[in-house]
Amino acid sequence: MISTNGLFFNVKMALIYCNLRRFSATIYLMLLSELVSLLKDIAGKENVSAEREELLCYSYDATQIESLPDVIVKPTLPSQISEIMKLANKEDMPVIPRGAGTGFSGGSIPVKGGILLSFEKMNRIIEIDEDNLFAIVEPGVINGDLQRLVESKGLFYPPDPSSMDFCTLGGNVAENAGGPKAVKYGVTRDYVMGLEVVLPTGKVINTGVKTRKGVVGYDFTRLMTGSEGTLGIITKIILKLLPMPEKVSTLSAFFTDIADAASTVVDITKKRIVPRAIEFMDKNSLEVVKEHLPEGLQEKAEALLLIEVDGTEIEAPRILERVKDVCKANNAARIDIAENESDAKRLWLARRSLSQNMFKLKPDKINEDIVVPRTKIPDIISAVDGISKKYNLRIVNFGHAGDGNIHVNIMYDKRDADETNRANEAVKELFSATLSLNGTISGEHGIGITKAPYLKMEIGDLGVEVMKKIKKSFDPNNILNPGKMFVD
Amino acid sequence: MISTNGLFFNVKMALIYCNLRRFSATIYLMLLSELVSLLKDIAGKENVSAEREELLCYSYDATQIESLPDVIVKPTLPSQISEIMKLANKEDMPVIPRGAGTGFSGGSIPVKGGILLSFEKMNRIIEIDEDNLFAIVEPGVINGDLQRLVESKGLFYPPDPSSMDFCTLGGNVAENAGGPKAVKYGVTRDYVMGLEVVLPTGKVINTGVKTRKGVVGYDFTRLMTGSEGTLGIITKIILKLLPMPEKVSTLSAFFTDIADAASTVVDITKKRIVPRAIEFMDKNSLEVVKEHLPEGLQEKAEALLLIEVDGTEIEAPRILERVKDVCKANNAARIDIAENESDAKRLWLARRSLSQNMFKLKPDKINEDIVVPRTKIPDIISAVDGISKKYNLRIVNFGHAGDGNIHVNIMYDKRDADETNRANEAVKELFSATLSLNGTISGEHGIGITKAPYLKMEIGDLGVEVMKKIKKSFDPNNILNPGKMFVD
Repeated sequence: MISTNGLFFNVKMALIYCNLRRFSATIYLMLLSELVSLLKDIAGKENVSAEREELLCYSYDATQIESLPDVIVKPTLPSQISEIMKLANKEDMPVIPRGAGTGFSGGSIPVKGGILLSFEKMNRIIEIDEDNLFAIVEPGVINGDLQRLVESKGLFYPPDPSSMDFCTLGGNVAENAGGPKAVKYGVTRDYVMGLEVVLPTGKVINTGVKTRKGVVGYDFTRLMTGSEGTLGIITKIILKLLPMPEKVSTLSAFFTDIADAASTVVDITKKRIVPRAIEFMDKNSLEVVKEHLPEGLQEKAEALLLIEVDGTEIEAPRILERVKDVCKANNAARIDIAENESDAKRLWLARRSLSQNMFKLKPDKINEDIVVPRTKIPDIISAVDGISKKYNLRIVNFGHAGDGNIHVNIMYDKRDADETNRANEAVKELFSATLSLNGTISGEHGIGITKAPYLKMEIGDLGVEVMKKIKKSFDPNNILNPGKMFVD
Repeated sequence: MISTNGLFFNVKMALIYCNLRRFSATIYLMLLSELVSLLKDIAGKENVSAEREELLCYSYDATQIESLPDVIVKPTLPSQISEIMKLANKEDMPVIPRGAGTGFSGGSIPVKGGILLSFEKMNRIIEIDEDNLFAIVEPGVINGDLQRLVESKGLFYPPDPSSMDFCTLGGNVAENAGGPKAVKYGVTRDYVMGLEVVLPTGKVINTGVKTRKGVVGYDFTRLMTGSEGTLGIITKIILKLLPMPEKVSTLSAFFTDIADAASTVVDITKKRIVPRAIEFMDKNSLEVVKEHLPEGLQEKAEALLLIEVDGTEIEAPRILERVKDVCKANNAARIDIAENESDAKRLWLARRSLSQNMFKLKPDKINEDIVVPRTKIPDIISAVDGISKKYNLRIVNFGHAGDGNIHVNIMYDKRDADETNRANEAVKELFSATLSLNGTISGEHGIGITKAPYLKMEIGDLGVEVMKKIKKSFDPNNILNPGKMFVD
């Protein structure tokens, strides 16, 4: 490749100026066209674009925050990414990896412009090893596609974020995504056996193993998992698979007192039962999906638990009976047991239709994913209740009660400056309350942009300092997903 | 504390010279006594010693490699460790954390002398949270003590290295220890939720969470786990607990052809069964414990599998029946099912008495813990057979067949220089064979001293380079457990 030193120093400055709307668009476009042409040489004409319509499509994620990249590349090979990293590193240009943009913390938003790498063309399931129980995939594979393929072979890939039909496995690894089944089966981290990663230098490193065990050197695999695209670009993933459980049994239980629902969750643990999901919806959640609730419960239900257990054909229903007994002992107002898959779907309907219906309350929401030890669920719900009253905001709580991971949705209207301020104040107070209950400010969404200002609240100055040293040892020029995790 | 700069520069030099046997012992002893007195000020008189008899007790581990520390401290509080780290860091002195010294890679051997921190007095089980399913322990707690305590509460801490009645949880975390149950329940890494760590600067960092999920910042918890005391000193550990399975069912199966044993392991997976242990012994292993084998099998048995399944009272025996069918279909010569706990103990007897009996063959052994994908077990056994013949060495193979983790014990006599050389050559060839089968050179013992020369074979120059950068960002003066993982 032609040496471009100097030229791109200008491009970079131009990009910055342009982003600040302080520079003539003419010069910016001239330099950009040079960059696009270099990238086309690397990744192929058809895989590079700086067309505004396309840039727009890659400018946002589920947070609804927006920022345009300067150029999009859809690499098809790790070697292309390697070349791009060398170029970007030399020229100090931001590189932002992106899966499907379903994240809730802004991890894939190009807040500093730069080169956005979209993995939609690296979406091959390379291998399913049925005897050694692992899969090798490219980062652009959709989570649900892998799940369905392995299920057809009697195997099981448990991590199941709500966005599983859209989100990519690369994004799941970068954010260490969770899902309802985490209570029994853990999160993405627990399934990543190894990775291929392009470092900011363009060099390619293989981490981890294809075996069940391995303790050779520092654990780069888990260091990369959840690092939100700030340490390296994941280009291949080795994922652990499990045998598919024979049977899943499901029940739903309505409670007229939220305290009863909370003690049900704790009592299930006391009985040494580990369901594979214990989903929770509070009164406000139930209100927005009222039409899906059974007659007679639309007014008085204060909480809903959806509980799934799995095991063998004989055991799963037997365990569910024990769960039912616990619900009864805790005054459940109504318990429904699914007799078959379509029954189970019906029970999940209220939960599944919640996200879209929430906007009936307000046009915007801040969706936080705090976690507390599960016995502290009543405390955090009561704290949220206080915050809701103090700031005069509607707050909808639902989530994965089994692992204490509550999605706290603060509803507001962006156009109302005062309400927006109150919503932001409420977030801060929510995080304080969470930490004082030995909780964490993020269970599965990550830090990204939205939680970066609060990172220190949880891990302290020293934690951030050590993180920055690690970041620097991987990415001294801070080209990889800049503006994420750390406040500038 | 009095400023000692300059003095300790001399102490350090003295220590180095003394280790090299090039310096007058008088000066060394003078400076050492100054160091001992400073350490006594920090940790208390009764917790510091430089007596030779005591130093000897802390100079070795299960590798039988020996090297004396200069002084031993038995801290009782993290704040003492913090002060010691500040002192050591200022004076550039090695600090070596040590659990019970049961490791198989030399992780706790003070190869450069220095201050050895023994955790025998930090052995409190601080908390068992039965509702949120975690334990908080100090690093000196014996693995088996925690296991027994949580079992008495109907809970379960699965990682079970063979040394569980002696080894400490701090050492388990530092080495990411495994054990027979890893095939179903994973290794120590899968149970570490959070840590308190004293950094080489003396600052104290808290990593991880007390909750089931957490994705706040880089994963220091897993970075520390398996870092072999080279990045920080672990002073507190939060460990995940599980409900205790209701029932364990055990069988043993003898095979007259090792290939049949190997295909049994694979077929169990094909049937989507996950036993909680599948232990394996080869012909040489069986020979050394011949007196514990059933009549008629002493001559012709080529392999033994010990298989444990767990689940509910009803399910566990039912699953074991399916395992039995798989063994039968693979021509097992004899299958024994344990009817009760003492039966199960009897079945495990051959396996349990193996380690001590092995020395009947030769006075010394190199115990490697390679792992291959489980379908590759026949290939690695046949490769080991070739190596054994080529180098004219007795090699005893046993281990955790369920996860492909084979303990390859190369028997030799240290006093025979030629045999020792051949043993070392055999190790190198074993590692090559393992890697060519997509395996790893260490499943649960770690790198330490013994595997440091081979680290590059697996993770390459780049892997080592990135590791060194991380090491440097934590420990720029290389005071923490120097000489481990990396070849100087």
